Amino acid sequence: MKILENLIESFEKLPGIGPKTAERLAYSVLDLDDEYVKEFAQNLIDAKTKIKRCKICGMYCDSDICDVCKDKDRISDTLIVVSSTKDAIAIEKATKKYKYFVLNGNISLLKNITPDKLNIPLLLTRIETENIKEIILATSSTLDGETTARYLSNILENKVKVTRLAYGLPMGSELEYLDTLTLEKAISGRNKI
Amino acid sequence: MKILENLIESFEKLPGIGPKTAERLAYSVLDLDDEYVKEFAQNLIDAKTKIKRCKICGMYCDSDICDVCKDKDRISDTLIVVSSTKDAIAIEKATKKYKYFVLNGNISLLKNITPDKLNIPLLLTRIETENIKEIILATSSTLDGETTARYLSNILENKVKVTRLAYGLPMGSELEYLDTLTLEKAISGRNKI
Repeated sequence: MKILENLIESFEKLPGIGPKTAERLAYSVLDLDDEYVKEFAQNLIDAKTKIKRCKICGMYCDSDICDVCKDKDRISDTLIVVSSTKDAIAIEKATKKYKYFVLNGNISLLKNITPDKLNIPLLLTRIETENIKEIILATSSTLDGETTARYLSNILENKVKVTRLAYGLPMGSELEYLDTLTLEKAISGRNKI
Repeated sequence: MKILENLIESFEKLPGIGPKTAERLAYSVLDLDDEYVKEFAQNLIDAKTKIKRCKICGMYCDSDICDVCKDKDRISDTLIVVSSTKDAIAIEKATKKYKYFVLNGNISLLKNITPDKLNIPLLLTRIETENIKEIILATSSTLDGETTARYLSNILENKVKVTRLAYGLPMGSELEYLDTLTLEKAISGRNKI
């Protein structure tokens, strides 16, 4: 059935959805309510057409300027630099004191993402116009995240104070299950108590 | 963002998609092409509105009668009874000799699915009108699948020859990793070679 195959293909294009899962999801759509499927289709269109990027920080939002950038109570001379909106939202759950800047990706040699594909010029403009004193690099501790942090710290270190999220033990972690790299970082970054 | 939350909720209603995955998928939609998202929405609507059930066997298809039921070369006095279209398609990959009957579910005490919710009356009609000699019960070897097979074999055994798919070792399986129930079935069902 071509119609079902089309739907399977649509699901398959989503990241992390393999052919088997795509097939399972497509069949499950057939078993669901008409109303739900209509809503699903509408939600897809709405999300894609109505959600844009904040003109200041680059986060996904449903207006020109996001709520975080509008918030007057945030620290105004510090920016947390993240790779994606999702990362900023994860940090929001921990603290709502800072403002953000979304790079929209990481530098990646494997995926051929060079620095010019990231939002860096806008970041430089903001540092100047908003008189930013500190940039907190909050990219992931993956290879690409580290590469991006290294690159940014190189081009920013003469302009502004550049810091990086601390490495160490995740809270609630069992020492015996941690990888050696994390342990090494936790030892070399040890603090006086 | 309400719009994004709506999309996350839509993804979450799909079976096997938890809140974290739904969030990941919804964000990924924002990063995909406009064209793809439009197509995805259209494919959802098309699948739901254009795919119906074959009037003879109950399989999902895009016409009134499915290709299998139209096929004159299949064995005509035997029906393979399955729980879902997907199961029938799985069997099709192994053999294209038989015709099917889709129950549209399994009897399940936990999910409160009683026999009257399955397509059983239509099966009984077919057995009579098509003069069926053998019913091959091909429900899954799960609790619900077994319950369904047991129920059907009880109501059919006086009308027709009832058989069940064989239990035993899956091909290519390592004996040491098999569960005891499968091994027990494989031993009690052993064949002369």
